[in-house]
Amino acid sequence: MTQMLKARAGELTPAMKEVAEKEGISPDIILEGVAKGKIAIPYNIHHINLKPCGIGKGLKTKVNANIGTSPQYPDIAKEMDKLRTALDAGADAVMDLSTGGDINACRKQIIDNCPVCVGTVPIYQAIVESKGKYDNLIQMTADDLFGVIEKQAEDGVDFITVHCGVTLEVIERLRREGRITDIVSRGGAFLAGWMLHHEIENPLFEQYDRLVEIALKHDVTLSLGDGLRPGCLADATDKAQIQELIILGELVERAWEQGVQVMVEGPGHVPLDQIAANMVLQKRLCKEAPFYVLGPIVTDVAPGYDHITSAIGGAIAAWSGADFLCYVTPAEHLGLPTDQDVRDGVIASRIAGHAADIVKGVPGARKWDDSMARARKNLDWEAQLNLAIDPVKARAMRKDKNPEGMKECTMCGEFCAMKVIGEYLGTEFPKC
Amino acid sequence: MTQMLKARAGELTPAMKEVAEKEGISPDIILEGVAKGKIAIPYNIHHINLKPCGIGKGLKTKVNANIGTSPQYPDIAKEMDKLRTALDAGADAVMDLSTGGDINACRKQIIDNCPVCVGTVPIYQAIVESKGKYDNLIQMTADDLFGVIEKQAEDGVDFITVHCGVTLEVIERLRREGRITDIVSRGGAFLAGWMLHHEIENPLFEQYDRLVEIALKHDVTLSLGDGLRPGCLADATDKAQIQELIILGELVERAWEQGVQVMVEGPGHVPLDQIAANMVLQKRLCKEAPFYVLGPIVTDVAPGYDHITSAIGGAIAAWSGADFLCYVTPAEHLGLPTDQDVRDGVIASRIAGHAADIVKGVPGARKWDDSMARARKNLDWEAQLNLAIDPVKARAMRKDKNPEGMKECTMCGEFCAMKVIGEYLGTEFPKC
Repeated sequence: MTQMLKARAGELTPAMKEVAEKEGISPDIILEGVAKGKIAIPYNIHHINLKPCGIGKGLKTKVNANIGTSPQYPDIAKEMDKLRTALDAGADAVMDLSTGGDINACRKQIIDNCPVCVGTVPIYQAIVESKGKYDNLIQMTADDLFGVIEKQAEDGVDFITVHCGVTLEVIERLRREGRITDIVSRGGAFLAGWMLHHEIENPLFEQYDRLVEIALKHDVTLSLGDGLRPGCLADATDKAQIQELIILGELVERAWEQGVQVMVEGPGHVPLDQIAANMVLQKRLCKEAPFYVLGPIVTDVAPGYDHITSAIGGAIAAWSGADFLCYVTPAEHLGLPTDQDVRDGVIASRIAGHAADIVKGVPGARKWDDSMARARKNLDWEAQLNLAIDPVKARAMRKDKNPEGMKECTMCGEFCAMKVIGEYLGTEFPKC
Repeated sequence: MTQMLKARAGELTPAMKEVAEKEGISPDIILEGVAKGKIAIPYNIHHINLKPCGIGKGLKTKVNANIGTSPQYPDIAKEMDKLRTALDAGADAVMDLSTGGDINACRKQIIDNCPVCVGTVPIYQAIVESKGKYDNLIQMTADDLFGVIEKQAEDGVDFITVHCGVTLEVIERLRREGRITDIVSRGGAFLAGWMLHHEIENPLFEQYDRLVEIALKHDVTLSLGDGLRPGCLADATDKAQIQELIILGELVERAWEQGVQVMVEGPGHVPLDQIAANMVLQKRLCKEAPFYVLGPIVTDVAPGYDHITSAIGGAIAAWSGADFLCYVTPAEHLGLPTDQDVRDGVIASRIAGHAADIVKGVPGARKWDDSMARARKNLDWEAQLNLAIDPVKARAMRKDKNPEGMKECTMCGEFCAMKVIGEYLGTEFPKC
């Protein structure tokens, strides 16, 4: 039985209890959210030692880090380093997007060593294996794809991205739209190419019940991928994107009917003034299923800094309803992220999520900021560094920039406003 | 005659023409904006070789970089390096906030070598000089302060931050408010301490006409400082802050009456959901005077990453009406920025400004993104790197992460969505 079916049966599972405790929210609210699908707890029954995490309405905004090999960088050890970095930086989930080397081995190592939920995009492995199996990877069959999905579910993957909404109807709308970047989702692009080549419907759509059945068996959360997500500002919120979202909304309900947990994935590249509308639309069309957004990045012109462009978009998205942010690293649009890129990406997304949690009224969010404010007021550096979202970096920078034992910092030195206020107004102001 | 007086007399100055050309906007609109005070062109008559820049309504969002010595780091050469870095990264203005070493010499070198407008906060120098001159720097006199203002105006400073709104009334409201961080503006904190110590009104408020007269003589733009800006989320948008803003709004009109250009400075630390309200309020209370914001940063917990927290806030602020973003570097709250911090700060602010310009409809803003989108679609790396907001960094990262001559990138390799679409759908999709 999935977490959702158990919740509907009124059974408060250990996972729900743990989520409730972590969030500081009543277990009843978690149970109700999971029962209704507004909260997902991705938790494959085969994933041993998982510390379950809730994603959805009323909860802290979560952050996912993508790792995984690529054809040019097949070294699993490097990806394990990135896993440790992502966890250390505070990622709530990790996706293994491996496409190079021994994909099964890499996934196994990640799942075995990962206390947070693990996601994958099974079509990647299906494509790579088809390349070895056939003359041309386009010869992949629907059974090849479902075979990989089943194997990954059995291996303990907690959530899988499945581009079920890339239908012939959606592709036709895309064709009419005349986008600049067409399809930028790897899975979406391959699926669309495959469908047009074979002149058949998307098997993930046509055989959706088969997919739901696999998910049900292992309690895999379906993350309905947005194959048509915009790849540039010019393509945002167009008919193709919204048509796919409508279909995803219908598929959400079909999964829920069977007791399968679902999330919906969202854009992408979106101008500032379209982000909130995208969130409202998803929440309505998908009946408040948890929304998992990639970015959104708010300008196309900043390769090397897309952790920042996506922190801007992610903060507004989370504030407007997104529940789960997929990190974007400085390497986006340029190459595979390094360890440092992973760290920068996780922290930037966590900043975005936390900034949103403060104004969404997530329990305890603002308390953290107020504690930091008091530490600053008191020039209590030890407290400031311990409270920092990245204590390691903050401590290193404090050390680099200031002589040992300095009371203020080298920005203002003795002219420190906190110190001046302390000296001249100290007794005249109320203390907190 | 100031740019404003000339505009009112209907004289289209070379500076206005140059601004119009740079912005791609009709010179008449610039002239009208300057005449009404909605656009400022900070341009001290003594600043030789300045390439004038317009700040305000309808124009591209501008970015300022703060540099300058501190008591611990008095080396002018290091600040000159930062000046070059800031200019190279695309800063539209630079503020010299020096408080260490030979302040006059540092300012002179910066002005002599700076083609963008230069700002200062004269009270910093007045404080530092009082420290040498008196037993206690609190003995500074109003004439000491005005003496520094006059000297800096004669030296060619284009705009000065003056905390004219820190009045006894405002301090009384602050006292009643009970903030966590009281005053975090260096100038504001010192002024408030000085006023309370001497039990007299702020000379920058009481002798505002004297200030306006100096500004008029040299066409120094007054940047009315927000001494009461919130230093943490908890203190944002409180009575003290808004009381000061009301007073600044009155002072804006008094400067305009004399033909003196004015900008108004704004917060600070502001939660996501209060940023737009702050911008609307300033625009109303200050009759659309250009708004110059420091950040705002949207969470207090990220020292080491405040270029990101402020890029989030800055993007929303600029979208909601802010005209001029003061950068915040990763060193904020930790120490004096290094050269690399300066670069990171300028680029982060430029990203925020550009993301906003796209949705504010600033002429030409979106074209840049669309060009990048086309370059991506065509896998034209040379065009992508040249179009990048930081071409140097993007090029270095592309080189580091990818083997020479690679057509795609190491993120997806041969499974590149752009390539897949090109191969399978290439002829079936409309080309842009």
